[in-house]
Amino acid sequence: MAKKEKVKIIPLGGLEQIGMNITAFQFNDDIIVVDCGMSFPENGMLGIDCVIPDVSFLKENKDKIKGFVITHGHEDHIGALPYVLKDINVPIYATKLTMAIIESKLEEHELLDVVKRKVIKFGQSIHLGEFRVEFIKTNHSIADAAALAIHTPVGVIVHTGDFKIDYTPLFGDAINLTRFSELGKKGVLALMCDSTNVLRPGFTPSERKVADTIKQIFMDHSKSRIIIATFASNVDRVQQIINTAYEFKRKVVIEGRSMANVIKIAADLGYIKMPENTLIETEEMGNYTDDQLVLITTGSQGESMAALSRMAASTHKRVHIKPGDTIVFSSSPIPGNEKAVTKVINELYEKGAEVIFQDTHVSGHACEEEIKLMYSLIKPKYAVPVHGEYRHLLAQCKLAQRLGVPSENIFLLQSGDVLELSEDSGKIAGTVPVDTVLVDGLGVGDVGNIVLRDRQYLAENGIIIVVLTLEKGSNQLLAGPDIVTRGFVYVRESENLIEDAKYVIEGALDKVLTDPKVDWSTIKDTVRDSLGDYIWSEIKRKPMILPIVMEVE
Amino acid sequence: MAKKEKVKIIPLGGLEQIGMNITAFQFNDDIIVVDCGMSFPENGMLGIDCVIPDVSFLKENKDKIKGFVITHGHEDHIGALPYVLKDINVPIYATKLTMAIIESKLEEHELLDVVKRKVIKFGQSIHLGEFRVEFIKTNHSIADAAALAIHTPVGVIVHTGDFKIDYTPLFGDAINLTRFSELGKKGVLALMCDSTNVLRPGFTPSERKVADTIKQIFMDHSKSRIIIATFASNVDRVQQIINTAYEFKRKVVIEGRSMANVIKIAADLGYIKMPENTLIETEEMGNYTDDQLVLITTGSQGESMAALSRMAASTHKRVHIKPGDTIVFSSSPIPGNEKAVTKVINELYEKGAEVIFQDTHVSGHACEEEIKLMYSLIKPKYAVPVHGEYRHLLAQCKLAQRLGVPSENIFLLQSGDVLELSEDSGKIAGTVPVDTVLVDGLGVGDVGNIVLRDRQYLAENGIIIVVLTLEKGSNQLLAGPDIVTRGFVYVRESENLIEDAKYVIEGALDKVLTDPKVDWSTIKDTVRDSLGDYIWSEIKRKPMILPIVMEVE
Repeated sequence: MAKKEKVKIIPLGGLEQIGMNITAFQFNDDIIVVDCGMSFPENGMLGIDCVIPDVSFLKENKDKIKGFVITHGHEDHIGALPYVLKDINVPIYATKLTMAIIESKLEEHELLDVVKRKVIKFGQSIHLGEFRVEFIKTNHSIADAAALAIHTPVGVIVHTGDFKIDYTPLFGDAINLTRFSELGKKGVLALMCDSTNVLRPGFTPSERKVADTIKQIFMDHSKSRIIIATFASNVDRVQQIINTAYEFKRKVVIEGRSMANVIKIAADLGYIKMPENTLIETEEMGNYTDDQLVLITTGSQGESMAALSRMAASTHKRVHIKPGDTIVFSSSPIPGNEKAVTKVINELYEKGAEVIFQDTHVSGHACEEEIKLMYSLIKPKYAVPVHGEYRHLLAQCKLAQRLGVPSENIFLLQSGDVLELSEDSGKIAGTVPVDTVLVDGLGVGDVGNIVLRDRQYLAENGIIIVVLTLEKGSNQLLAGPDIVTRGFVYVRESENLIEDAKYVIEGALDKVLTDPKVDWSTIKDTVRDSLGDYIWSEIKRKPMILPIVMEVE
Repeated sequence: MAKKEKVKIIPLGGLEQIGMNITAFQFNDDIIVVDCGMSFPENGMLGIDCVIPDVSFLKENKDKIKGFVITHGHEDHIGALPYVLKDINVPIYATKLTMAIIESKLEEHELLDVVKRKVIKFGQSIHLGEFRVEFIKTNHSIADAAALAIHTPVGVIVHTGDFKIDYTPLFGDAINLTRFSELGKKGVLALMCDSTNVLRPGFTPSERKVADTIKQIFMDHSKSRIIIATFASNVDRVQQIINTAYEFKRKVVIEGRSMANVIKIAADLGYIKMPENTLIETEEMGNYTDDQLVLITTGSQGESMAALSRMAASTHKRVHIKPGDTIVFSSSPIPGNEKAVTKVINELYEKGAEVIFQDTHVSGHACEEEIKLMYSLIKPKYAVPVHGEYRHLLAQCKLAQRLGVPSENIFLLQSGDVLELSEDSGKIAGTVPVDTVLVDGLGVGDVGNIVLRDRQYLAENGIIIVVLTLEKGSNQLLAGPDIVTRGFVYVRESENLIEDAKYVIEGALDKVLTDPKVDWSTIKDTVRDSLGDYIWSEIKRKPMILPIVMEVE
């Protein structure tokens, strides 16, 4: 290997926010892509379903791309795959459960027959051009999460994916610390470590802690119907609820489409084991008493259309909350969802239910001490924090420095930066274009800033449409001005305002329409200005004003 | 006093949410009203400035109302006054600072000359018909906060207002526990106690704790320019920042209109003491080095137009954040503001500033142990929890029961309930109409559910307007269909979609316009259905479709 060889790390998303994780690794003419996630719309992205990365860099280098390597099956790591694969159809590599979740997405987008896929086991490696990618077992809030050791001609890059350290997981193995230690001993070029929880001191508790709390809840509420809301994808959590239900001789009902979907996938693969005669249909609930039932449901984030939210709002068809029910939020609110969750909690209390939302969840991400352990085992030459907002990345940079990584070897990247690493030096050697692409319905990228600005304006102010028909040539007013409003005022109670507005517009138009050569933009400006001034003076509002002029021969 | 005499407690707002506090007390033909607050718009109340209570009950009983008695100067206790006073012009009673803040509002609404006002001192009582209202000193996050002992012919009702217990306040006296104890000894009919923090165990720390932390920050960052964001109304907090600045020989700059306004009011009354030569104008900052400056600013909640947010976004004209600045959030995010605050924090970090947001704030509301102390001193016969969401009120009901109030004497009221208390019995004896009134600009109540639903729909989907001009009588299409969209798609990139949509509409109209008697609703439905189906089939979206038909002779 020549000393001058360089590997490039090119994050295309995920470094300005939580979500939309996607990173390209390039060595000469070989590129691999780790993860391909979406993010949820920010405030102000009105009407947007999800946000995906701009992958123009990948499109331009399509021929070099050897495949997508996926760390785990959460939306922020796999959600953009179906959109991106339509342009860049390369094979996908992932562990078993991750692949099954990806496959259910591909099926929805009718891509299952055209995309190559290979399931990888922990400990196994795949060769992708000059890269060799090794999958290493970690712990996270979904089963089958992997870290990646990316072996390159320049050295090994360890990408943790989303991870935590659970020494005593309820199901499956603990994170493979031995392998990280081995890699560290042999020498690791760079560590790309999860930053999500870096601001939290200490250790994230084991999933076993939740198990104890949930068992206690079953003991304390032996007469109640128990309803537990959690993340559909948290397969281990669902399994332990099922096991506890079985232990307490309760039947399990699954509520919520995404929950039923993930449980089916996980059960088919053997990741969830359902004891016989435990699962029943919602319709069979009537055959059992409250103390014989547990419902596992979606809606732990207060999502308005999810099963628990509909139960709380009395709009769920089959499940009605009643006094004596015990409802457990086995989750924490994701930032931004606090008010929605609180609303659901209040509604449940109002129906007489007991609501439990403390100590029934642990995070899936490593806290400060776990991140320190990872650095201490891996001893990387370079540190490249990933997964987090700026404040998280910055905090991990400081942590890496305290752990002995020289500050010139620590890189706080932005999406689009091209980090070039050789054996003895690292630098940001340029940028590639990155952006976010908004998805609204089937439209990918056709809603941009102008459309969003209009939506925001319409949302806050409503719209007044003023239509006129003019005679061609003479500019004689043949019909109108007619005024139609939406989202502005309650029209029946504001008839006078609208009538007076018409007179104001007519008066202003009288002056400009005497000129048969007046152009349409003058006519429209006259409508907009006269009406805008009038509305502002009357009620201090600024609705969008849209003049439409029609011409008749 | 006849045994059968009854006092009525009628909350008109504030029991379904944090905010909009207003409660009427009626004895025979005398009514007094405690507080008259607004609340901030909920999610979905697009474009709404604030929300005020429906006071139709008060309007119908205008002649009985003796006055408004105000506990303290926060928006959720005084914000609706200017709106309500326009209909119900009765005197206002409040402590000095509270009254000064109310007066600045009345001035804005040109009501200062027409509304009677009387400043009340702690310990003083006012007679209002059969009521005697005594003001009792408490502690809160604004100075001059009062609890009320409402002496009625049936007994004494204690209303705590918003309060905490601070044994060691930085300025002014501690809460007057002695008086509460005295009242309790003599016998209190009912306690209406703040529920906001009832779910938090323990005691709210003293303001003095913040003082220590802030002093430490000044010591640790002796070379930095220090910028501290807090609530404009937290006069004591502002005072201690000023004092610390003076102690460390720094000049103070005030940034943000509401901050400057409150400080002016408080300083005029002597509630803030500004040491000489401490306050400077923003423009004078250039004359001082970083270590000689402290900025006190608004924006601690990430409000997009507040001073700190503008500094973080580089849109503030006079203050530019730079590496080395230390920025302190002396506040906690109010639920719902978490994401906005986080955004500002990230932006500040990106500019190289240090950001401190822990241990620099204490709540202004009593925690569980303080509420227990209040019950234990006052020993009320009836408990009527106030100020909080349902879960908070419910938790205080349970607490009251554990403290010995019999469950039949505990009332979890809803806004509009009429609670009738006599010496020996209490019951909910009916309801009065209550509602919320939305304020948008100068419009009070003219934005209702239909308008909000339209705003929501426009926000998520945008609008397509289709205009046609028909010949009267023949229904011949003289002009159009013209299509105008807003908030739908980026038109330049979707020209084909819009062109094709026109053909689709024309095709559909051809069929119905052959009938010269076709009515307009059929024409409009044809446009709406044909266009709606086409757009859905093409891009799976449902914009608002607004057909407008004009007719020309």
